[in-house]
Amino acid sequence: MPSAATLAALRAFVAERDWDQFHSPENLAKSISIEASELLECFQWSSDFDQTRVEEELADVVTYCVHLANKLGVDLDDIVIRKLQSTAAKYPVHLAKGRMTKYTKLAEEEE
Amino acid sequence: MPSAATLAALRAFVAERDWDQFHSPENLAKSISIEASELLECFQWSSDFDQTRVEEELADVVTYCVHLANKLGVDLDDIVIRKLQSTAAKYPVHLAKGRMTKYTKLAEEEE
Amino acid sequence: MPSAATLAALRAFVAERDWDQFHSPENLAKSISIEASELLECFQWSSDFDQTRVEEELADVVTYCVHLANKLGVDLDDIVIRKLQSTAAKYPVHLAKGRMTKYTKLAEEEE
Amino acid sequence: MPSAATLAALRAFVAERDWDQFHSPENLAKSISIEASELLECFQWSSDFDQTRVEEELADVVTYCVHLANKLGVDLDDIVIRKLQSTAAKYPVHLAKGRMTKYTKLAEEEE
Repeated sequence: MPSAATLAALRAFVAERDWDQFHSPENLAKSISIEASELLECFQWSSDFDQTRVEEELADVVTYCVHLANKLGVDLDDIVIRKLQSTAAKYPVHLAKGRMTKYTKLAEEEE
Repeated sequence: MPSAATLAALRAFVAERDWDQFHSPENLAKSISIEASELLECFQWSSDFDQTRVEEELADVVTYCVHLANKLGVDLDDIVIRKLQSTAAKYPVHLAKGRMTKYTKLAEEEE
Repeated sequence: MPSAATLAALRAFVAERDWDQFHSPENLAKSISIEASELLECFQWSSDFDQTRVEEELADVVTYCVHLANKLGVDLDDIVIRKLQSTAAKYPVHLAKGRMTKYTKLAEEEE
Repeated sequence: MPSAATLAALRAFVAERDWDQFHSPENLAKSISIEASELLECFQWSSDFDQTRVEEELADVVTYCVHLANKLGVDLDDIVIRKLQSTAAKYPVHLAKGRMTKYTKLAEEEE
């Protein structure tokens, strides 16, 4: 993740504009957060939403995520799968099924 | 994006826990924003960072992005490429090269 | 805003810990955003909320806002009132009453 | 916090536009987070900043914080002072002086 074609297109976009100099991990983390809020703004006053606008804002978030993964030298599929394994351990099915209770509380219940 | 295996693993994780009921687009947008801030927290006081922690927080952001793309019925590669085309039009190379000036200002310069 | 007593207490807290060196405007802006997301987390999966937790997270946001106002040398009441005047001009009562339509769209309607 | 005059002005602004119906605690929390990101955007690519723009974005964050405090029926000075007391306990001067180490790590050191 992403496809080789998408990755190449994103890299070419940055290279042509000589923007790599601005893409420090910190600046990319700020950018992901800023774009995530623009996505949230689609839902600021209501759960109704404009599909096209949501897609565009989601694309912006993911674009910066790809840039950051590049900088870190990691593949998004790899880190997502690795994190899923640790999340699955924190949220065992028998405790977490059908409810959004934080894992720290689930652990207390289990004791 | 993501790979078929990652997508299947994420869907199974949600299905086993019966969490789809919580995954409204609005809740997922909130979740992306919350996780993006946890990523930003890795850089709160310094641009130095812990690679493992950054990878984990980035994975959380991307995980919710995949869930939202699922809900919207779109592919992340598709929307990223589509958005890249409109961003490229807003930031022509001859104006944007080597600087982070907002496209609205670039457009004023061009007039 | 805040009261002289609150301001003095916040300044003493920072001075005792020698934390002023970390309180650059940029770091404080990151901190406000991070704390705002912790506040949002109180509403991640539902509009129901825990009053005590929300109060604590709101307090964290406002604390960093006071620190930033300090750094900028401005008074929060002053900047809030000044901004209110420009917002009021963008959202005239006869156009904005009873609906959350962005001012750019309101302006189009008015034309 | 804020002054009685600021509070009255903010309440009148909302009442005239009949916007109280949109100001649920959840929507205000989203709004605080969205405005906090606009503040962060002033520092997206550099620690240099435009003072006027930062003041305006900070004002927006604080405005929504005042609206939320109103909804919760709490005074911002009160909750800030209360939170300061618990934060002071988590960050004792002898451990926290001159460094930004999270309280959970400070507690480990103390053991």
